[in-house]
Amino acid sequence: MKKIAVILSGCGVFDGSEIHEAVLTMLAINQQGAQYSCFAPDINQYHVINHLTGEVSEDESRNVLVESARIARGEVADVKTLVVDDFDGLILPGGFGAAKNLSDFAVNGDKCRLQADVLTACQAFARANKAAGYICIAPAMIPLVYGKGTKMTIGTDSDTAAAVTAMGAEHLNCPVNDIVIDKDHKLVSTPAYMLANNMVEAASGINLLVKEVLAMA
Amino acid sequence: MKKIAVILSGCGVFDGSEIHEAVLTMLAINQQGAQYSCFAPDINQYHVINHLTGEVSEDESRNVLVESARIARGEVADVKTLVVDDFDGLILPGGFGAAKNLSDFAVNGDKCRLQADVLTACQAFARANKAAGYICIAPAMIPLVYGKGTKMTIGTDSDTAAAVTAMGAEHLNCPVNDIVIDKDHKLVSTPAYMLANNMVEAASGINLLVKEVLAMA
Repeated sequence: MKKIAVILSGCGVFDGSEIHEAVLTMLAINQQGAQYSCFAPDINQYHVINHLTGEVSEDESRNVLVESARIARGEVADVKTLVVDDFDGLILPGGFGAAKNLSDFAVNGDKCRLQADVLTACQAFARANKAAGYICIAPAMIPLVYGKGTKMTIGTDSDTAAAVTAMGAEHLNCPVNDIVIDKDHKLVSTPAYMLANNMVEAASGINLLVKEVLAMA
Repeated sequence: MKKIAVILSGCGVFDGSEIHEAVLTMLAINQQGAQYSCFAPDINQYHVINHLTGEVSEDESRNVLVESARIARGEVADVKTLVVDDFDGLILPGGFGAAKNLSDFAVNGDKCRLQADVLTACQAFARANKAAGYICIAPAMIPLVYGKGTKMTIGTDSDTAAAVTAMGAEHLNCPVNDIVIDKDHKLVSTPAYMLANNMVEAASGINLLVKEVLAMA
């Protein structure tokens, strides 16, 4: 049975992992006969957003690993402990957590950096030539993991596409129900909630991404 | 297009809504051609559990409506504003939030009570003879909504079954991939993570529950 590592970034679209994308990813892995294990960095979130009002919750701080455990029903480990040899592939769901906690893309755009432990883990999969899938805004991390010249998508948003292009990626527009495959790098990306209007739309691209990652794994 | 109200109880299996069950419910509603709207009570959670350690986070308090907004991507309303005429049916996912926030079943067992706004909303569907589905531990609320003599399941856990039987329900053992239907009350229940070992198992019963609720709606 193939094993996929899933890196989460908290719990909630505006300050962590997009919950639907994370659950749909885990469901698709299970449905397609594979297993997943969840990981997250043991760091504080960039901030906490009240998801009802959309406002920053100024006096609150939350830990990315602890909040990710909500999505993982407690079964999540520090991404520092991720051993690439134990897995056939890697998937990163989206949500602003990918751009605020796993990286600072939401703040620094094309000048962004990756959180150190996440960078180490993602690069380990790249160097081992193992399959990886990046969902929604998570593909903004791809140029920092793989270097210049990877084919990828964040959907059709022109500002975000310009930023990842400036970072050295070859951005391809992609509809919500499709994926972009970079066969040389065993790399798959899909827009999900960068474009999705509902969960069925998000699932359509995520199911394809998981299928392709498992096929290449 | 049929419309289903979904009542959430926070965000995380140990102190709120079971995230997988909530997302699988919303996905199944979408996939089966219907719409959902999310609601939750505007109250503080019974407590906050650190989902990584399983321990109570003593100094923290969180609001059920605010945390439910994480699962609902911000699109959630106070359950006080739920107008039964606007919906064809009602579904309550599980998670300890159903037994700690929507009711106090986790604390008081067969002597439990329902949160007042949740009771009003659930009873409105019962009185209107509209379809309702209760998932996982949420069926423990059924006797307080419908009175004695409803057919229902919380799976096979004998202690929990004894408690709901003491409250006046007729408990039927049910495997994870099946549902119990009470046609007289247009009421469906399924064990989900009371028994599920993985997300595919949880989805099997939830998909059936949603199908039956929509058929009766």
